[in-house]
Amino acid sequence: MTKQQLFENITRKKSFLCIGLDTDVNKIPEHLFDVSEDPVFDFNKAIIDATADLCVAYKPNLAFYESIGLEGWDVLERTVEYIRTNYPDQFVIADAKRGDIGNTSAMYARTFFGNMDFDAVTVAPYMGEDSVTPFLSYENKWVTLLALTSNKGAFDFQLMKDAETGEHLFEKVLKTSQHWGNADNMMYVVGATKAEMLSDIRKIVPNHFLLVPGVGAQGGSLAEVAKYGMNAECGLLVNSSRQVIYADDTEKFAEAARVEAQKVQQEMEDYLRLSLCI
Amino acid sequence: MTKQQLFENITRKKSFLCIGLDTDVNKIPEHLFDVSEDPVFDFNKAIIDATADLCVAYKPNLAFYESIGLEGWDVLERTVEYIRTNYPDQFVIADAKRGDIGNTSAMYARTFFGNMDFDAVTVAPYMGEDSVTPFLSYENKWVTLLALTSNKGAFDFQLMKDAETGEHLFEKVLKTSQHWGNADNMMYVVGATKAEMLSDIRKIVPNHFLLVPGVGAQGGSLAEVAKYGMNAECGLLVNSSRQVIYADDTEKFAEAARVEAQKVQQEMEDYLRLSLCI
Repeated sequence: MTKQQLFENITRKKSFLCIGLDTDVNKIPEHLFDVSEDPVFDFNKAIIDATADLCVAYKPNLAFYESIGLEGWDVLERTVEYIRTNYPDQFVIADAKRGDIGNTSAMYARTFFGNMDFDAVTVAPYMGEDSVTPFLSYENKWVTLLALTSNKGAFDFQLMKDAETGEHLFEKVLKTSQHWGNADNMMYVVGATKAEMLSDIRKIVPNHFLLVPGVGAQGGSLAEVAKYGMNAECGLLVNSSRQVIYADDTEKFAEAARVEAQKVQQEMEDYLRLSLCI
Repeated sequence: MTKQQLFENITRKKSFLCIGLDTDVNKIPEHLFDVSEDPVFDFNKAIIDATADLCVAYKPNLAFYESIGLEGWDVLERTVEYIRTNYPDQFVIADAKRGDIGNTSAMYARTFFGNMDFDAVTVAPYMGEDSVTPFLSYENKWVTLLALTSNKGAFDFQLMKDAETGEHLFEKVLKTSQHWGNADNMMYVVGATKAEMLSDIRKIVPNHFLLVPGVGAQGGSLAEVAKYGMNAECGLLVNSSRQVIYADDTEKFAEAARVEAQKVQQEMEDYLRLSLCI
């Protein structure tokens, strides 16, 4: 998907919501195990069907699928295929946080862009350029590079200041990586828990999309993210996982997920109207 | 496996060789596709059977298995099981370079230590403490944390100097992470291509094991690694992947892999005798 198409979807749906499919076999409604032979996939399918008109992106986190072994990979592959077939306007992100030496990152790129049809994959920047660029060789596919994450551990290294430039590590990541890709094939993870830093970040990456986790369960504020992070093409994908997909654990889980997604979408609609007049 | 057991294996086998099972379906001998219905597993099995007495560790890199989808995960699981059953003295490392927020890293830990019986998993430090500690909650299991990697991209961020302390980022990783684990459950990745830096690294982590990639195909020198990196309990696992496993692409590939592994083992035996009198 191109940046322009992503922005068009945001404009049309009046939403920049990304729903995190962090499907934990221990958290999905128990009745699914009685009524379905394929409970993890059926959970995903129900959540997707209930929310697809309210969001522009889905983001399965690989850890949850890998943790149930072969079945998990199978469910992941079928989930991506299901979205592609039924909701082709969705931007699908593999939240995999990969990154390895060049020839090995090329293998990961093949996994997510060749074998599976993801639009983007999250990549950790620690190993530098050759760990990231193999993902950029696929047309209309994206790297979603970790910059400033939403967790407590972000303070351990990401805020270290460079003796030469005074920049934080995450700022160096933002600046350096712009030589590897551009705003049409690279976006950055910036946690909502650090929304007040978004205006400074926007000075470094005015045109890039930012994938913002941490709204909801992790405590970040959507209002602040929109205020400090939105650019002329929205430039934001705000992720919500647990708050939406585990809104309810009864047979009405999908409807409850829709209600939660709708609350977020309506708030987003307000911000889009206020900031971009759409 | 405990640190003591690992050292005993090194002493007994006179080797600190780790063989990287970077099994690329496009590089394994072609005849395997004619004679086997399970060529990737049979390649691994043959390599392992031919080299197990010469090495103390195997390190499958996840990217190569993921890139062939479900079959790859199945082969990976069976490979770990095969090593566990037939060569229980091997230290088995999942070269996965994972790392995510706490509850998600816990899922990855379950994958590699709960579902599969790896001894260690490589973890990227970018997301800090809560992305690493979930892996440390399993008894006698290890985190192999990226510090100074062997690739060109290592220069992009890992050598950034801290304005406060003057330390490089990788040194900060080495120091900070010692509060999370200890020399009995954490080792560090330090590339052989930067062997001259090993003496400084040893000042920070005198007792930890180091996993050293980059000898062989990537150009690092085993002599230098041993000279600068060895401690009183060896403290080194030196990885060789391509040089060993792709030594030959005919029906004699396993014998050729053995010959290559033996060359490295014999050199290691010399260094162990010289430095530790064993």
